[in-house]
Amino acid sequence: MSESIESKGPLVIIGGAEDKHENCTILREFVRLAGGIDAHIAVLTAATAYPQEAGIEYDRVFSHLGAAAVDIVHTEEPDDANSPQLLEIVADATGVFFTGGDQSRVIRVVQDSLLEDLLHKRHREGIVVGGTSAGAAIMSEVMIAEGDSTTHPYLNAVEMSKGMGFLSQVLVDQHFAQRGRLGRLLTALLLEPHVLGLGIDENTAVVVQGDDLEVIGAGAVTVVDESETSHNNLSRLLKDEAMAVFGVKLHILPHGYRFNLKTRQPSVPEGSLVP
Amino acid sequence: MSESIESKGPLVIIGGAEDKHENCTILREFVRLAGGIDAHIAVLTAATAYPQEAGIEYDRVFSHLGAAAVDIVHTEEPDDANSPQLLEIVADATGVFFTGGDQSRVIRVVQDSLLEDLLHKRHREGIVVGGTSAGAAIMSEVMIAEGDSTTHPYLNAVEMSKGMGFLSQVLVDQHFAQRGRLGRLLTALLLEPHVLGLGIDENTAVVVQGDDLEVIGAGAVTVVDESETSHNNLSRLLKDEAMAVFGVKLHILPHGYRFNLKTRQPSVPEGSLVP
Repeated sequence: MSESIESKGPLVIIGGAEDKHENCTILREFVRLAGGIDAHIAVLTAATAYPQEAGIEYDRVFSHLGAAAVDIVHTEEPDDANSPQLLEIVADATGVFFTGGDQSRVIRVVQDSLLEDLLHKRHREGIVVGGTSAGAAIMSEVMIAEGDSTTHPYLNAVEMSKGMGFLSQVLVDQHFAQRGRLGRLLTALLLEPHVLGLGIDENTAVVVQGDDLEVIGAGAVTVVDESETSHNNLSRLLKDEAMAVFGVKLHILPHGYRFNLKTRQPSVPEGSLVP
Repeated sequence: MSESIESKGPLVIIGGAEDKHENCTILREFVRLAGGIDAHIAVLTAATAYPQEAGIEYDRVFSHLGAAAVDIVHTEEPDDANSPQLLEIVADATGVFFTGGDQSRVIRVVQDSLLEDLLHKRHREGIVVGGTSAGAAIMSEVMIAEGDSTTHPYLNAVEMSKGMGFLSQVLVDQHFAQRGRLGRLLTALLLEPHVLGLGIDENTAVVVQGDDLEVIGAGAVTVVDESETSHNNLSRLLKDEAMAVFGVKLHILPHGYRFNLKTRQPSVPEGSLVP
């Protein structure tokens, strides 16, 4: 068992395509959780094939929002993830941010490195860890490595792999409404029973603190709970056949709504007039 | 209240893009329900802007499958829906099939016509009514006229209108997985409480007989049941704000699975080894 998550830092898990030019609601909240105008932010570009461009873009927006320092951590090869200079940046950071790209690149480069150990140590010490798109997918212990977005649930529609493991018992899918990924997430959850699915729309995020999750941004988060399903056909399915499942529970949560990961109960925004 | 649906003919409601060249599983079942090699099929092209092409295509496939007669009913203007020649075709048909296109065209042309009355009379007398894509959307009493497919639930993401009403207490959305329409269907269902949602994938259909629904085809049908939801924010929502809903129930049903519209319970295929 992992230790209590209560002592860990917050997570900001973004469904991709977050606003970087107008109110910057989500990135603004990330900077606030990283210490506001005292924030030292390390931007990890491991996921992207365009690390220079991604680094410049996030340097611009985090600096514009008032962070005291923004450092870009490029890890193009696994060796880079053991580089003393890069480790020093993360050791001093008050917030770490994973860019988008391909989630498998992050795991390939960071897995079993000193950087991986240090990221977990810093998170346990309380710093915020954020990520968008591929940087959101890697947050869980098991992640969706790749998969066809647009089909109904199929056994071969999704490929699972190890994630970075900042959050346990959860599976994250991103660009959720925009890419019609319900089928892909349902399939992944049948392969990983007891895990809760979070389908995060673009320009939308969940902020996780302890067992509490709050939604921020323009879209919604679809919480997919398969814990009370009464039937699925996984045991008799061949590879290209369609899955069946009875009794999946969904909650659609827009800005301000909360969800408790332990009790699996959603709740309305504080101060809401609606019961 | 509408009369008992037990006495009515079957419905074959297809999510669009059904196979017309290989096994033709769905259209084959439609022809079988229309009387097999004795079938007289009327193809209604009201939905499409290309009625000639659609008529030729369905004439080819239904004839190929062995139907005794296939007649095309073109109704480009509302007057056509009162034409004695066209009404005679429907009066003699053992099955009626609505092509795809734009569901609003069907309602505009057929509503309040002699054709509308006759279609309901023939259906009550027991003939099968089928439809694909737009021809599936019109099956219900209230239908999704149009709406943005790819967003999360938004109050303005969907426009509802009157359907043909062959099936009550149900709302149909088509091309479901392929166009990522969960958000659109969830929104429509919040606007039409007590109605059950059927999200039908391409090359997939439900065959409705009495209260019993069976899935056929390559994809799956997503049954969306909002009857046990514990909260939604519809009453306080402005037009461009994201919807919230707690506790939607989903069943994903591939080929051979059944669902009872009265009890709202899914069931596994007969002879299945899985409980």
